Amino acid sequence: MQPRNLSILGVGLLGGSIALAAKRRITNCTVKGYGHREQTLTDAINAGVIDERYADASAAVRGADLIILCTPVGVFEQILCEIAPALAPGAVVTDVGSTKRSVVSAAERLLPPTVAFVGSHPMAGSEKRGVENARADLTDGALCIVTPTDRTPAAAMETVETFWKTIGMRTTRMSPADHDRHLADVSHLPHAVAAALVTIQEDKSIALAGKGFLDATRIAGGDGGLWRDILLDNRDNLRDSLLRLRGTLDDLLIRLEPEHAESLKRWLDDAAEKRSKLNRARRD
Amino acid sequence: MQPRNLSILGVGLLGGSIALAAKRRITNCTVKGYGHREQTLTDAINAGVIDERYADASAAVRGADLIILCTPVGVFEQILCEIAPALAPGAVVTDVGSTKRSVVSAAERLLPPTVAFVGSHPMAGSEKRGVENARADLTDGALCIVTPTDRTPAAAMETVETFWKTIGMRTTRMSPADHDRHLADVSHLPHAVAAALVTIQEDKSIALAGKGFLDATRIAGGDGGLWRDILLDNRDNLRDSLLRLRGTLDDLLIRLEPEHAESLKRWLDDAAEKRSKLNRARRD
Repeated sequence: MQPRNLSILGVGLLGGSIALAAKRRITNCTVKGYGHREQTLTDAINAGVIDERYADASAAVRGADLIILCTPVGVFEQILCEIAPALAPGAVVTDVGSTKRSVVSAAERLLPPTVAFVGSHPMAGSEKRGVENARADLTDGALCIVTPTDRTPAAAMETVETFWKTIGMRTTRMSPADHDRHLADVSHLPHAVAAALVTIQEDKSIALAGKGFLDATRIAGGDGGLWRDILLDNRDNLRDSLLRLRGTLDDLLIRLEPEHAESLKRWLDDAAEKRSKLNRARRD
Repeated sequence: MQPRNLSILGVGLLGGSIALAAKRRITNCTVKGYGHREQTLTDAINAGVIDERYADASAAVRGADLIILCTPVGVFEQILCEIAPALAPGAVVTDVGSTKRSVVSAAERLLPPTVAFVGSHPMAGSEKRGVENARADLTDGALCIVTPTDRTPAAAMETVETFWKTIGMRTTRMSPADHDRHLADVSHLPHAVAAALVTIQEDKSIALAGKGFLDATRIAGGDGGLWRDILLDNRDNLRDSLLRLRGTLDDLLIRLEPEHAESLKRWLDDAAEKRSKLNRARRD
């Protein structure tokens, strides 16, 4: 069953792209948009990204059958409190947050039993920001991780997975805890490391940056406020990931001697092979 | 003065691309190619990358006015020994190595006083390898670092800089020691870190890799043998870079608490701003 009345809370790059994709793929779907900046809502209406604009989150969810939280992770709890009294019975709420334990537990605590919450993490994005960069194809072919708990109704799960597939995504299921642990390794740690790689550069070094450095640090261009929220929200896992990376770099420091040349080559070859498998899997 | 008789020692991706660019930009320039694999030389001749093929480096430099070492860094010293007796008086020798102190000092020690050596590092490349991926435009617009010493004749310096500019590169000068120190930070460290980021991933985590992880680790797909030679050759600087990165990550571990949220945001914002300046400078 497709939503007829979709509410997007936070009309930025991802929220706007989801709205555009829904309007393209689902007939007779009205899209309401909430944003705290007047200009964003004006831009979103003018660009045809949303059909109705709301400066108040609770007004934006009235009568909606599917509600998607697309604001930064750091304000999810506040938004959940605001919308809780206004949600229609039977409504399904999901989100696009990059961390899952905190939002899933807040939603299960704060939302009324008449509505269902299903945590989602659509892995689509860009260093670009804002509704002006929204594109109907941003989610095409990307993976969406859906994170049910033992309290998630099967029907709500189905609604949410069907929605993501309708706008072109592949879906996979895992627990909020597994999600946060894996994402710390494959997303939050690389972001922190990219920022550190940029931070330590002298001006004279960074002036020599080639394509390799540009690629390796591109993610560090992301918004500081958004990433602070993500890194803090998942800090226990990120700390563990950082310590494991540090252990690997400490091993490398030991291996960095001519007498360990063969072991160093093996380590580099193994990493290259593991990385190349990803290319073959993703047409990268 | 442009070379009329160019010798490319090592006809791989970069050597082949330099050969193609030279043949396109310089009229009446004969390109000799040396390689230790029969098939590479056959491919290079068939693709019109080189005009003459040699399985013997000393034969490939006879009569050449400009000789470019394009083999892996690890065999430079051996090649220099082989070609030293065969070089024509007045010949200019340069290289494309990613580290500069070792090759410059080996060349100044091993080559006869009748020829000049100028160290070069054309910062053009790709994770792709081999002459089959050579392209005449690989060097277009890229930066070439030229590393003179107090023993480098001005005329040879001019020959080498003119050559790199002729094939579309920008050039900059610095000492071999400065080169190796800056490149440890901006190239060798990012490579080591990308390999470490891949190494620590569990299969379940790497299956969730998005565009950010693919970008951040693309350089880890490079050839293990080549990179082993580079990392070992520059190990003193790389060790220093690794220790400074570790210090920055240790700071982050401390900042990763809600009471340090503002300082964490500032750190991420500063990195994002520094990284974004690079985009503006490079049309990235």
